[in-house]
Amino acid sequence: RFTCSASNNDRMAFIDFPYVSTSHKHLMLDLVSTVQNRLNSFLNPCTLPPDVESYQNETGTAHAALHLQSGVQSSPIDFVLGSWLHCKLPSGGALNITSLSAYLNSSTDAPNFLVELIQSSPTSMVLILDLPPRVDLVLDPEYLKTFYEDTQLDKHRQYLDQLSEVKPYFSSSLYIRSVVSPTAILVRIETEGLEEMIKTHISPIAKEVLKTWLDVCAFGDRVVGESERDYLKKRDEMSKSKTIEIDLGSNLPRLFGQETANRVLEALREVF
Amino acid sequence: RFTCSASNNDRMAFIDFPYVSTSHKHLMLDLVSTVQNRLNSFLNPCTLPPDVESYQNETGTAHAALHLQSGVQSSPIDFVLGSWLHCKLPSGGALNITSLSAYLNSSTDAPNFLVELIQSSPTSMVLILDLPPRVDLVLDPEYLKTFYEDTQLDKHRQYLDQLSEVKPYFSSSLYIRSVVSPTAILVRIETEGLEEMIKTHISPIAKEVLKTWLDVCAFGDRVVGESERDYLKKRDEMSKSKTIEIDLGSNLPRLFGQETANRVLEALREVF
Repeated sequence: RFTCSASNNDRMAFIDFPYVSTSHKHLMLDLVSTVQNRLNSFLNPCTLPPDVESYQNETGTAHAALHLQSGVQSSPIDFVLGSWLHCKLPSGGALNITSLSAYLNSSTDAPNFLVELIQSSPTSMVLILDLPPRVDLVLDPEYLKTFYEDTQLDKHRQYLDQLSEVKPYFSSSLYIRSVVSPTAILVRIETEGLEEMIKTHISPIAKEVLKTWLDVCAFGDRVVGESERDYLKKRDEMSKSKTIEIDLGSNLPRLFGQETANRVLEALREVF
Repeated sequence: RFTCSASNNDRMAFIDFPYVSTSHKHLMLDLVSTVQNRLNSFLNPCTLPPDVESYQNETGTAHAALHLQSGVQSSPIDFVLGSWLHCKLPSGGALNITSLSAYLNSSTDAPNFLVELIQSSPTSMVLILDLPPRVDLVLDPEYLKTFYEDTQLDKHRQYLDQLSEVKPYFSSSLYIRSVVSPTAILVRIETEGLEEMIKTHISPIAKEVLKTWLDVCAFGDRVVGESERDYLKKRDEMSKSKTIEIDLGSNLPRLFGQETANRVLEALREVF
């Protein structure tokens, strides 16, 4: 099923998640395989070059992997992107980021899906979990009702908010704060028991939010008229190009050198 | 200057702020007089009927006051609205809300201004302080830069975030969460020393944010082309009608009875 990557060579493939803890890896594998299973007939094989699928810096202190599948013509999927990044920190620890995002195309205006786990120490993790909206919610209360109120997405955020180890997290990028939905889970988790926290609290919520996205958004059959498609395309393009600029524009060259960064960004810009 | 209301009768006028603490009252008076002074030539006199300017319920357990001034034709001001509400709680305490908001018209797309202090106990207060944007920020990174990044509005939110008495606040309304900016201050303050907290931390920040709004938004000379005005008008109307519905639609009848609620809502709907 993972048409891009095999683990039978030196490269560490996306699906290996080689650097993260067991419960973190299990969560990511569960989310990735759920997306693969449900969207199976919608997705093209991954066609990334091997040196973009998996890459590292010269000194071997930073590794990363990508898995990118575009949607087939008749599907509502623009593309699905998975990634992980591992980077040794000068302090002795390591930064580990894993993410999975799914973007719909302009045949529908239903929200996208995004999950990202950012672990900067054995006891600290940032979780971003959201269905980012694709229209201006201020102008469209019906959209807000359909995708955020009726789906009761806020109950997951409220549940995590009750846990003493969990604090709201504010992205340093105001643009990223603007892109997320009003029910976005943006939290920092500080605990000695991070493994248990992921298993008991984060995993069930992430799986449930993905299920909501698959049922209501990817398979929601919400069709958009020809006249609205230009607006959607424009907004999607702006949102994607700004997101890639903020996420990767400065970090990739810093971590992997300009040459590798250019190679990766060029491959991603084909879909972003 | 307060053309609507005099304090020389039984009614408690907007400008009296009769129920809140000294530092809370001083803050509101400072903000109101700053707006009055700076926007003086832009504002029409308040023309609310006396029984909308100040009203109460039958048993006298709930009082409220409004002060509304529309902008003169050639100004960028749509209207400025001040309000307070006092309501005895069954528990023995009282709920006190004071607010000041300023809406610009479609000659400019600069953000509006909003401050609201909601005190539900002597040791607990919710503060909402923001310049709500009037365009879709995802589509307009330049707007985000002009009004939110270059103005460094987020430093105020970050400053409050450092205080142990201050916690992020999430409105129960997803629509209200959508209307605010990415630098919105939405916090709950829990402290025995609320008076001191308002004086030392809240007041300077509220005054500074208002100054930013006056300098950069109300007097920003940011002109909007004819073609964008329809979009702005539509978005403003939706945002105002939803806000009034959420803020007052269910609360006013509950607190003051249907007849008074209808009278007040009717007066407000002329500008909202």
